Amino acid sequence: MDRRRPRRAGPAALRRRPGGHSAQDGGRGVNTEEDLLARVALTWLAEPGTRSVHRLVGELGPAATLDLLLDGGAPEEWLRAAVAARSREGDARSVAADALARTQRLGARIVTPDDEEEWPPRVEDLRRMVLPGGHRRVDRETAPPLCLWTRSGWPLREALDRSVAVVGARAATGYGMHVATELGYGLADRDWTVVSGGAFGIDAAAHRGALNAGGLTVAVLACGIDQPYPMGNAALFDRIAETGLLVSEWMPGAEPFRPRFLIRNRVIAAATLGTVLVEAAARSGATQTFNRALAVGRRPMVVPGPVTSAMSVGAHELLRERPSARLVTGVPHVLEEVGRIGADLAPPARAPQRPRDLLDDEATLVLESMPRRGTVDVDRLAARAGVDLRTALRKLSLLEELGMVRRRDNGYALVTHPAGAPGTSPARVSGSIADPPP
Amino acid sequence: MDRRRPRRAGPAALRRRPGGHSAQDGGRGVNTEEDLLARVALTWLAEPGTRSVHRLVGELGPAATLDLLLDGGAPEEWLRAAVAARSREGDARSVAADALARTQRLGARIVTPDDEEEWPPRVEDLRRMVLPGGHRRVDRETAPPLCLWTRSGWPLREALDRSVAVVGARAATGYGMHVATELGYGLADRDWTVVSGGAFGIDAAAHRGALNAGGLTVAVLACGIDQPYPMGNAALFDRIAETGLLVSEWMPGAEPFRPRFLIRNRVIAAATLGTVLVEAAARSGATQTFNRALAVGRRPMVVPGPVTSAMSVGAHELLRERPSARLVTGVPHVLEEVGRIGADLAPPARAPQRPRDLLDDEATLVLESMPRRGTVDVDRLAARAGVDLRTALRKLSLLEELGMVRRRDNGYALVTHPAGAPGTSPARVSGSIADPPP
Repeated sequence: MDRRRPRRAGPAALRRRPGGHSAQDGGRGVNTEEDLLARVALTWLAEPGTRSVHRLVGELGPAATLDLLLDGGAPEEWLRAAVAARSREGDARSVAADALARTQRLGARIVTPDDEEEWPPRVEDLRRMVLPGGHRRVDRETAPPLCLWTRSGWPLREALDRSVAVVGARAATGYGMHVATELGYGLADRDWTVVSGGAFGIDAAAHRGALNAGGLTVAVLACGIDQPYPMGNAALFDRIAETGLLVSEWMPGAEPFRPRFLIRNRVIAAATLGTVLVEAAARSGATQTFNRALAVGRRPMVVPGPVTSAMSVGAHELLRERPSARLVTGVPHVLEEVGRIGADLAPPARAPQRPRDLLDDEATLVLESMPRRGTVDVDRLAARAGVDLRTALRKLSLLEELGMVRRRDNGYALVTHPAGAPGTSPARVSGSIADPPP
Repeated sequence: MDRRRPRRAGPAALRRRPGGHSAQDGGRGVNTEEDLLARVALTWLAEPGTRSVHRLVGELGPAATLDLLLDGGAPEEWLRAAVAARSREGDARSVAADALARTQRLGARIVTPDDEEEWPPRVEDLRRMVLPGGHRRVDRETAPPLCLWTRSGWPLREALDRSVAVVGARAATGYGMHVATELGYGLADRDWTVVSGGAFGIDAAAHRGALNAGGLTVAVLACGIDQPYPMGNAALFDRIAETGLLVSEWMPGAEPFRPRFLIRNRVIAAATLGTVLVEAAARSGATQTFNRALAVGRRPMVVPGPVTSAMSVGAHELLRERPSARLVTGVPHVLEEVGRIGADLAPPARAPQRPRDLLDDEATLVLESMPRRGTVDVDRLAARAGVDLRTALRKLSLLEELGMVRRRDNGYALVTHPAGAPGTSPARVSGSIADPPP
């Protein structure tokens, strides 16, 4: 398909088709407006990712779960407290109804697990995600989303099918911005969707790279899609909304207060096939996304940087401490990790083939035993090379044919090329191979 | 001991004390002048590292091995050819005698495995070294040295006991030079001997760093110690000879023609506890030293660099392809690899402790739910934080005591610090955690 020209969604995109039973959320009952309203209300009552709410929705369906919670029937004390606190703010159902109306006014859509055609299946793996030593609530409550808002003609599932997350520091260096832009461009150019968080720095650079390639990019937000944060990226968000997707678990108008960025990160990690960390300081939120990618079994990739850069300390720590973290230096390495098996394999880094590579052991010894300047007689050369006279003569005629040495009346001489003696130029970058002295 | 002030060697340093049998080379017979002369002659007849010669010396002793080779009794055809070719150059014994005289004139010494006090035991591990896919002669013939020339008051064994090799590209970048100098300085400053090959670029930077720290550095040469190569580093070699050691397997006057640099690299790799590769292009001699360190069971370490730098391509490839290659970013990481067990452990990279780190789950939620500007009433705050009213009030008074929030008549407000709201500064470098919007 041509990913450059997005399908436009019909005006009635909000109207749900009867979804029937969904294997995805184990939801019971058809996906009625009531269920949709309940999912929205539940998302408002308890922050997305709350495990017990997601489990109840699977068991009882959204509407019944909403009734239960509003009746103070939440299983955990802290959740009952949270629901009670929110309820003091307003009536969950009317808040949800307003959100639905606002969503329609925005021309946005709400996607639920009942929309099997559009729900991104990989986020369901969050059911099984366990973060090592996850004692903070944001590390514990990492269930799949109840629903997702999006503002695009793109079917969500299709857009995320071949996707890679590129995340990193907000206070990125020029180096990091350059690398992230290149990655975003190169991945999008190869029809991979570039997913990130829309933050300043690396996130924005990755989005821009993808947009510049005319490719598809998805910004997963930690606030309502009608007021993407940060404001400084407003123009970027507009470009993304035009050709790509803005996605959020939070209803329009929702504020991006800090815990939501960590809650959101689990979706970036789970919805993609792999996460590339470009720059991260010693203590960094980008590493949180990375750890979530690891925990949910996605390919964890890290771009190294100068050891002199504080913005790469976190990246290097991950490479040292996480055996499964893969060092990548560019798009080919990333494709090697996330590409279909067999396809997209990165070629090993190699210097250009040199004529010397064609020489056998003895010919190489003879060549390398030639003086840099002047001529040498065959006896002396054989001695230096440690080969017998016959061999020396045989190899010399070969080297002569290859245009590497020339016979003179008083012996043999190297044929020097502009780049220096044959095959020495690559050696010039080596720390332990040197050329013979002048 | 104070490694800054080297013991001066006696004038008669050349005179061998009766070494008796040596476990090191399994040599038989005492280490007579004849044996010494034979070792020198053998080193000249066949390049150092030749396995069959080393084996014969172990079985028959140096003198008998020399007789055997000169009688055309070398086991391999190529070796017989090499011996014959050299012999056409001159008489092995007289060449060796001249070398001994020249060594004495230089005030240099020859160390053999019979000098159990001074012979560096780790080089003997080269007996067991096997290079994967080693088809070139330099990859096959990697036996321990027959003898080593040195020009220093330092006992060789003592100097190499706590040693690390730092190698890398000759066409190093400013970044690589900086890192190598820092490593050389930091290691020497902690009483580690810095070993390298004396080449331009990374090697020279590592030596200089060690010298600047007033520490000990060893240059293992691929030519005679009386004409260290490259000439461009002559001043550096003089400084090393003064306070450190110049070491070589080749007799004074020997030329550094290319195969010798690879032959030499096995000694750098084996004599040290680990090898740090700082910069290397895709095809690089430094990676050869690295592979030898791997093959002989030393700690293989690699310093990453910008993925945009051709001089780091080889380093990154090693980190990707060699599971045992360890990414290191500085001296603490290197010491962690080579340091005595338990000692020299690198502290994990951490941002400075912040007051926020002392807060529990709920207090953090409450703090993070505070609006950046203005005040908020407790009900709304509790709702945003998802905690009950009682908890919100309890945590607020804690935050108030910590000076993070202030109570106003119309609610609570953040106490903003110069660096921004408490604990937000470190988060500023994160790609996926953002501050609440203004």
